Amino acid sequence: TAVLAGGALAGALSPEEQIETRQAGYTFMGWNMGKIKANLQGDYNAEQVKAAADTIAAIANSGMGALYGPGTDKDIGDVKTRVKPELFENMQDVGKLAGDFTKAADNLAEVAAGGDESAVKAAFGDLGQACKACHKKYRADD
Amino acid sequence: TAVLAGGALAGALSPEEQIETRQAGYTFMGWNMGKIKANLQGDYNAEQVKAAADTIAAIANSGMGALYGPGTDKDIGDVKTRVKPELFENMQDVGKLAGDFTKAADNLAEVAAGGDESAVKAAFGDLGQACKACHKKYRADD
Ligand code: HEC
Ligand code: HEC
Repeated sequence: TAVLAGGALAGALSPEEQIETRQAGYTFMGWNMGKIKANLQGDYNAEQVKAAADTIAAIANSGMGALYGPGTDKDIGDVKTRVKPELFENMQDVGKLAGDFTKAADNLAEVAAGGDESAVKAAFGDLGQACKACHKKYRADD
Repeated sequence: TAVLAGGALAGALSPEEQIETRQAGYTFMGWNMGKIKANLQGDYNAEQVKAAADTIAAIANSGMGALYGPGTDKDIGDVKTRVKPELFENMQDVGKLAGDFTKAADNLAEVAAGGDESAVKAAFGDLGQACKACHKKYRADD
Protein backbone atom coordinates (compact mmCIF):
# COMPACT_ATOMS: atom_id res chain seq x y z
CA THR A 1 0.00 0.00 0.00
CA ALA A 2 0.99 3.64 -0.33
CA VAL A 3 1.64 3.94 3.38
CA LEU A 4 3.99 0.97 3.52
CA ALA A 5 5.93 2.08 0.45
CA GLY A 6 6.15 5.51 1.98
CA GLY A 7 7.54 3.98 5.14
CA ALA A 8 10.33 2.30 3.25
CA LEU A 9 11.20 5.43 1.30
CA ALA A 10 10.99 7.66 4.34
CA GLY A 11 14.14 5.92 5.46
CA ALA A 12 15.71 8.71 3.42
CA LEU A 13 14.30 11.38 5.76
CA SER A 14 16.09 11.84 9.07
CA PRO A 15 13.92 11.64 12.21
CA GLU A 16 14.23 15.45 12.50
CA GLU A 17 12.97 15.87 8.93
CA GLN A 18 10.11 13.47 9.57
CA ILE A 19 8.96 15.54 12.56
CA GLU A 20 9.23 18.80 10.63
CA THR A 21 7.45 17.36 7.61
CA ARG A 22 4.50 15.99 9.58
CA GLN A 23 4.15 19.34 11.39
CA ALA A 24 4.25 21.04 7.98
CA GLY A 25 1.41 18.82 6.74
CA TYR A 26 -0.72 19.53 9.81
CA THR A 27 0.03 23.26 9.70
CA PHE A 28 -0.99 23.43 6.06
CA MET A 29 -4.21 21.49 6.75
CA GLY A 30 -4.93 23.83 9.65
CA TRP A 31 -4.67 26.86 7.37
CA ASN A 32 -7.07 25.29 4.90
CA MET A 33 -9.53 24.36 7.67
CA GLY A 34 -9.39 28.01 8.76
CA LYS A 35 -10.24 29.20 5.25
CA ILE A 36 -13.25 26.89 5.08
CA LYS A 37 -14.42 28.08 8.51
CA ALA A 38 -14.13 31.72 7.40
CA ASN A 39 -16.16 30.94 4.28
CA LEU A 40 -18.89 29.30 6.38
CA GLN A 41 -19.01 32.29 8.71
CA GLY A 42 -18.85 34.99 6.02
CA ASP A 43 -19.29 35.16 2.26
CA TYR A 44 -19.20 31.67 0.78
CA ASN A 45 -16.75 31.25 -2.10
CA ALA A 46 -17.36 27.74 -3.45
CA GLU A 47 -14.19 27.76 -5.52
CA GLN A 48 -11.99 28.59 -2.54
CA VAL A 49 -13.72 26.03 -0.32
CA LYS A 50 -13.26 23.32 -2.96
CA ALA A 51 -9.54 24.14 -3.34
CA ALA A 52 -9.07 24.04 0.44
CA ALA A 53 -10.98 20.78 0.85
CA ASP A 54 -9.02 19.19 -2.03
CA THR A 55 -5.77 20.17 -0.33
CA ILE A 56 -6.79 18.67 3.01
CA ALA A 57 -7.95 15.45 1.33
CA ALA A 58 -4.74 15.15 -0.68
CA ILE A 59 -2.59 15.62 2.43
CA ALA A 60 -4.75 13.11 4.32
CA ASN A 61 -4.10 10.58 1.54
CA SER A 62 -0.38 11.29 1.23
CA GLY A 63 0.83 8.59 3.60
CA MET A 64 1.79 10.69 6.62
CA GLY A 65 2.17 7.47 8.62
CA ALA A 66 5.64 7.28 7.07
CA LEU A 67 6.54 10.39 9.09
CA TYR A 68 6.23 8.55 12.42
CA GLY A 69 9.38 6.46 12.08
CA PRO A 70 11.75 5.30 14.81
CA GLY A 71 13.25 8.12 16.86
CA THR A 72 10.41 10.55 16.15
CA ASP A 73 8.63 9.93 19.46
CA LYS A 74 10.37 12.74 21.35
CA ASP A 75 12.20 16.05 20.92
CA ILE A 76 15.50 15.87 19.03
CA GLY A 77 17.56 18.85 20.15
CA ASP A 78 15.89 21.99 18.82
CA VAL A 79 13.33 19.98 16.90
CA LYS A 80 10.40 19.76 19.29
CA THR A 81 7.48 17.41 18.85
CA ARG A 82 4.10 17.37 20.57
CA VAL A 83 3.41 13.73 19.76
CA LYS A 84 2.64 11.60 22.83
CA PRO A 85 4.67 8.39 23.11
CA GLU A 86 1.31 6.60 23.46
CA LEU A 87 0.78 7.01 19.72
CA PHE A 88 3.56 4.52 19.00
CA GLU A 89 2.12 1.99 21.44
CA ASN A 90 -1.41 2.00 20.03
CA MET A 91 -0.91 1.69 16.31
CA GLN A 92 -4.18 -0.17 15.80
CA ASP A 93 -6.19 2.60 17.44
CA VAL A 94 -4.19 5.25 15.55
CA GLY A 95 -4.87 3.41 12.30
CA LYS A 96 -8.59 3.51 13.03
CA LEU A 97 -8.52 7.24 13.84
CA ALA A 98 -6.43 7.92 10.72
CA GLY A 99 -8.91 5.94 8.62
CA ASP A 100 -11.86 7.92 10.05
CA PHE A 101 -9.97 11.13 9.35
CA THR A 102 -9.17 10.21 5.74
CA LYS A 103 -12.78 9.20 5.14
CA ALA A 104 -14.03 12.50 6.59
CA ALA A 105 -11.54 14.47 4.47
CA ASP A 106 -12.56 12.60 1.29
CA ASN A 107 -16.20 13.26 2.14
CA LEU A 108 -15.63 16.99 2.66
CA ALA A 109 -13.83 17.22 -0.70
CA GLU A 110 -16.71 15.44 -2.43
CA VAL A 111 -19.34 17.63 -0.78
CA ALA A 112 -17.34 20.82 -1.43
CA ALA A 113 -17.24 19.99 -5.13
CA GLY A 114 -21.04 19.94 -5.05
CA GLY A 115 -21.12 23.48 -3.67
CA ASP A 116 -24.00 23.07 -1.18
CA GLU A 117 -23.00 25.22 1.79
CA SER A 118 -25.09 23.46 4.44
CA ALA A 119 -23.78 20.05 3.38
CA VAL A 120 -20.24 21.48 3.56
CA LYS A 121 -20.96 22.78 7.06
CA ALA A 122 -21.91 19.29 8.26
CA ALA A 123 -18.96 17.58 6.54
CA PHE A 124 -16.60 20.23 7.91
CA GLY A 125 -17.89 19.61 11.44
CA ASP A 126 -17.33 15.87 11.04
CA LEU A 127 -13.78 16.41 9.83
CA GLY A 128 -13.02 18.75 12.73
CA GLN A 129 -14.17 16.00 15.09
CA ALA A 130 -11.83 13.53 13.40
CA CYS A 131 -8.88 15.91 13.90
CA LYS A 132 -9.81 16.41 17.56
CA ALA A 133 -10.25 12.70 18.23
CA CYS A 134 -6.60 12.13 17.43
CA HIS A 135 -5.30 15.23 19.20
CA LYS A 136 -7.16 14.39 22.40
CA LYS A 137 -5.35 11.09 22.73
CA TYR A 138 -2.06 11.57 20.96
CA ARG A 139 -1.04 15.24 20.86
CA ALA A 140 0.33 16.97 23.94
CA ASP A 141 -0.85 20.45 24.91
CA ASP A 142 1.42 23.27 23.86
CA THR B 1 -10.73 34.53 -7.62
CA ALA B 2 -9.52 32.02 -5.08
CA VAL B 3 -6.27 33.90 -4.56
CA LEU B 4 -7.93 37.26 -3.89
CA ALA B 5 -10.48 35.80 -1.51
CA GLY B 6 -7.63 34.04 0.25
CA GLY B 7 -5.82 37.32 0.56
CA ALA B 8 -8.76 38.92 2.29
CA LEU B 9 -9.19 36.04 4.69
CA ALA B 10 -5.49 35.75 5.38
CA GLY B 11 -5.89 39.02 7.25
CA ALA B 12 -6.71 36.61 10.05
CA LEU B 13 -3.20 35.09 9.94
CA SER B 14 -0.43 37.13 11.52
CA PRO B 15 2.63 37.83 9.33
CA GLU B 16 4.53 35.23 11.41
CA GLU B 17 1.83 32.64 10.72
CA GLN B 18 1.85 33.47 7.03
CA ILE B 19 5.60 32.84 6.83
CA GLU B 20 5.31 29.57 8.76
CA THR B 21 2.37 28.42 6.70
CA ARG B 22 4.03 29.07 3.33
CA GLN B 23 7.17 27.27 4.53
CA ALA B 24 4.93 24.38 5.63
CA GLY B 25 3.38 24.18 2.17
CA TYR B 26 6.77 24.18 0.46
CA THR B 27 8.22 21.64 2.91
CA PHE B 28 5.29 19.31 2.32
CA MET B 29 5.62 19.67 -1.47
CA GLY B 30 9.34 18.97 -1.15
CA TRP B 31 8.66 15.71 0.69
CA ASN B 32 6.24 14.63 -2.03
CA MET B 33 8.70 15.56 -4.79
CA GLY B 34 11.26 13.39 -2.99
CA LYS B 35 8.89 10.44 -2.95
CA ILE B 36 8.26 10.73 -6.68
CA LYS B 37 12.00 10.96 -7.33
CA ALA B 38 12.61 7.82 -5.26
CA ASN B 39 9.91 6.00 -7.24
CA LEU B 40 11.52 7.02 -10.53
CA GLN B 41 14.91 5.83 -9.33
CA GLY B 42 13.75 2.57 -7.74
CA ASP B 43 10.61 0.46 -7.80
CA TYR B 44 7.74 2.40 -9.32
CA ASN B 45 4.57 2.43 -7.20
CA ALA B 46 1.95 4.16 -9.36
CA GLU B 47 -0.46 4.56 -6.44
CA GLN B 48 2.11 6.36 -4.29
CA VAL B 49 3.24 8.58 -7.17
CA LYS B 50 -0.37 9.55 -7.90
CA ALA B 51 -1.02 10.43 -4.24
CA ALA B 52 2.15 12.53 -4.09
CA ALA B 53 1.39 14.34 -7.37
CA ASP B 54 -2.19 15.03 -6.25
CA THR B 55 -0.86 16.56 -3.04
CA ILE B 56 1.57 18.83 -4.86
CA ALA B 57 -1.12 19.94 -7.31
CA ALA B 58 -3.62 20.64 -4.52
CA ILE B 59 -1.08 22.73 -2.61
CA ALA B 60 -0.15 24.57 -5.83
CA ASN B 61 -3.84 25.43 -6.30
CA SER B 62 -4.50 26.40 -2.68
CA GLY B 63 -3.85 30.13 -3.08
CA MET B 64 -0.45 30.43 -1.41
CA GLY B 65 -0.21 33.99 -2.74
CA ALA B 66 -2.30 34.93 0.30
CA LEU B 67 0.70 33.97 2.47
CA TYR B 68 2.84 36.82 1.11
CA GLY B 69 1.02 39.63 2.88
CA PRO B 70 2.46 42.90 4.23
CA GLY B 71 5.22 42.43 6.77
CA THR B 72 6.22 38.98 5.51
CA ASP B 73 9.16 40.24 3.44
CA LYS B 74 11.75 39.81 6.20
CA ASP B 75 12.51 37.93 9.42
CA ILE B 76 10.17 38.63 12.32
CA GLY B 77 12.11 37.85 15.49
CA ASP B 78 12.67 34.10 15.62
CA VAL B 79 10.56 33.54 12.53
CA LYS B 80 13.10 33.54 9.72
CA THR B 81 12.21 33.79 6.06
CA ARG B 82 14.30 33.13 2.99
CA VAL B 83 12.11 35.18 0.68
CA LYS B 84 13.98 37.91 -1.20
CA PRO B 85 12.41 41.39 -0.98
CA GLU B 86 12.54 41.39 -4.81
CA LEU B 87 9.54 39.06 -4.84
CA PHE B 88 7.27 41.81 -3.56
CA GLU B 89 8.54 44.25 -6.18
CA ASN B 90 7.96 42.00 -9.18
CA MET B 91 4.48 40.65 -8.68
CA GLN B 92 3.81 40.35 -12.40
CA ASP B 93 6.86 38.14 -12.94
CA VAL B 94 6.03 36.15 -9.79
CA GLY B 95 2.49 35.66 -11.07
CA LYS B 96 3.85 34.27 -14.32
CA LEU B 97 6.23 31.89 -12.52
CA ALA B 98 3.43 30.81 -10.18
CA GLY B 99 1.17 30.18 -13.16
CA ASP B 100 3.83 28.06 -14.89
CA PHE B 101 4.32 26.15 -11.64
CA THR B 102 0.61 25.45 -11.16
CA LYS B 103 0.29 24.30 -14.77
CA ALA B 104 3.28 21.96 -14.38
CA ALA B 105 1.84 20.58 -11.11
CA ASP B 106 -1.58 19.99 -12.70
CA ASN B 107 0.13 18.28 -15.63
CA LEU B 108 2.14 15.96 -13.37
CA ALA B 109 -1.02 14.99 -11.48
CA GLU B 110 -2.80 14.21 -14.74
CA VAL B 111 0.11 12.18 -16.09
CA ALA B 112 0.62 10.35 -12.77
CA ALA B 113 -3.03 9.25 -12.85
CA GLY B 114 -2.27 7.62 -16.20
CA GLY B 115 0.54 5.57 -14.64
CA ASP B 116 3.07 5.80 -17.53
CA GLU B 117 6.44 6.05 -15.81
CA SER B 118 8.35 7.72 -18.64
CA ALA B 119 5.66 10.37 -19.07
CA VAL B 120 5.81 10.96 -15.30
CA LYS B 121 9.57 11.34 -15.53
CA ALA B 122 9.24 14.12 -18.10
CA ALA B 123 6.43 15.91 -16.23
CA PHE B 124 8.38 15.61 -12.99
CA GLY B 125 11.42 17.20 -14.63
CA ASP B 126 9.30 20.08 -15.92
CA LEU B 127 7.82 20.68 -12.47
CA GLY B 128 11.27 20.66 -10.87
CA GLN B 129 12.33 23.35 -13.34
CA ALA B 130 9.29 25.44 -12.36
CA CYS B 131 10.25 25.23 -8.67
CA LYS B 132 13.83 26.18 -9.46
CA ALA B 133 12.85 29.11 -11.69
CA CYS B 134 11.23 30.80 -8.71
CA HIS B 135 13.91 29.88 -6.19
CA LYS B 136 16.67 31.23 -8.41
CA LYS B 137 15.14 34.68 -8.44
CA TYR B 138 13.21 34.97 -5.22
CA ARG B 139 14.58 32.60 -2.56
CA ALA B 140 17.79 33.38 -0.71
CA ASP B 141 20.39 30.69 -0.12
CA ASP B 142 20.31 29.04 3.30
C1 HEC C 1 -4.04 10.31 13.45
C2 HEC C 1 -3.66 11.47 14.24
C3 HEC C 1 -3.98 12.88 13.80
C4 HEC C 1 -4.96 13.35 12.97
C5 HEC C 1 -6.04 12.56 12.27
C6 HEC C 1 -4.78 14.78 12.90
N1 HEC C 1 -3.73 15.17 13.66
FE1 HEC C 1 -3.06 17.09 13.95
N2 HEC C 1 -1.47 16.37 15.00
C7 HEC C 1 -1.29 15.06 15.39
C8 HEC C 1 -0.04 14.93 16.13
C9 HEC C 1 0.53 13.66 16.71
C10 HEC C 1 0.53 16.22 16.16
C11 HEC C 1 1.88 16.62 16.77
C12 HEC C 1 2.95 16.45 15.66
C13 HEC C 1 4.34 16.77 16.16
O1 HEC C 1 4.51 17.79 16.88
O2 HEC C 1 5.28 16.02 15.82
C14 HEC C 1 -0.39 17.10 15.44
C15 HEC C 1 -0.17 18.47 15.24
C16 HEC C 1 -1.05 19.34 14.62
C17 HEC C 1 -0.84 20.77 14.47
C18 HEC C 1 0.39 21.57 14.95
C19 HEC C 1 1.47 21.45 13.86
C20 HEC C 1 2.79 22.13 14.21
O3 HEC C 1 3.25 22.99 13.42
O4 HEC C 1 3.39 21.81 15.26
C21 HEC C 1 -1.93 21.26 13.80
C22 HEC C 1 -2.18 22.70 13.37
C23 HEC C 1 -2.81 20.12 13.53
N3 HEC C 1 -2.25 18.99 14.05
C24 HEC C 1 -4.01 20.21 12.83
C25 HEC C 1 -4.75 19.10 12.40
C26 HEC C 1 -5.92 19.18 11.55
C27 HEC C 1 -6.53 20.48 11.04
C28 HEC C 1 -6.35 17.90 11.34
C29 HEC C 1 -7.50 17.39 10.54
C30 HEC C 1 -7.86 18.07 9.30
C31 HEC C 1 -5.45 17.02 12.07
N4 HEC C 1 -4.50 17.79 12.69
C32 HEC C 1 -5.57 15.62 12.12
C33 HEC C 1 -2.13 14.02 15.12
C34 HEC C 1 -3.22 14.04 14.25
C1 HEC D 1 6.46 31.39 -7.09
C2 HEC D 1 7.59 31.07 -6.26
C3 HEC D 1 7.91 29.64 -5.83
C4 HEC D 1 7.58 28.45 -6.42
C5 HEC D 1 6.82 28.23 -7.71
C6 HEC D 1 8.11 27.42 -5.57
N1 HEC D 1 8.77 27.96 -4.50
FE1 HEC D 1 9.72 26.96 -3.00
N2 HEC D 1 10.03 28.71 -2.03
C7 HEC D 1 9.77 29.97 -2.53
C8 HEC D 1 10.11 30.97 -1.54
C9 HEC D 1 9.96 32.47 -1.69
C10 HEC D 1 10.61 30.27 -0.43
C11 HEC D 1 11.07 30.87 0.91
C12 HEC D 1 9.84 30.94 1.83
C13 HEC D 1 10.16 31.57 3.18
O1 HEC D 1 11.21 31.23 3.77
O2 HEC D 1 9.35 32.39 3.66
C14 HEC D 1 10.55 28.86 -0.77
C15 HEC D 1 10.95 27.83 0.10
C16 HEC D 1 10.96 26.49 -0.23
C17 HEC D 1 11.43 25.43 0.67
C18 HEC D 1 11.97 25.60 2.09
C19 HEC D 1 10.77 25.64 3.06
C20 HEC D 1 11.14 25.89 4.52
O3 HEC D 1 10.76 25.07 5.35
O4 HEC D 1 11.79 26.89 4.81
C21 HEC D 1 11.26 24.25 -0.02
C22 HEC D 1 11.58 22.84 0.49
C23 HEC D 1 10.69 24.57 -1.31
N3 HEC D 1 10.52 25.93 -1.41
C24 HEC D 1 10.33 23.63 -2.28
C25 HEC D 1 9.60 23.93 -3.43
C26 HEC D 1 9.11 22.95 -4.36
C27 HEC D 1 9.36 21.45 -4.25
C28 HEC D 1 8.43 23.62 -5.34
C29 HEC D 1 7.72 23.09 -6.55
C30 HEC D 1 7.00 21.83 -6.47
C31 HEC D 1 8.51 25.03 -5.02
N4 HEC D 1 9.22 25.18 -3.85
C32 HEC D 1 7.95 26.05 -5.81
C33 HEC D 1 9.22 30.25 -3.77
C34 HEC D 1 8.68 29.32 -4.63
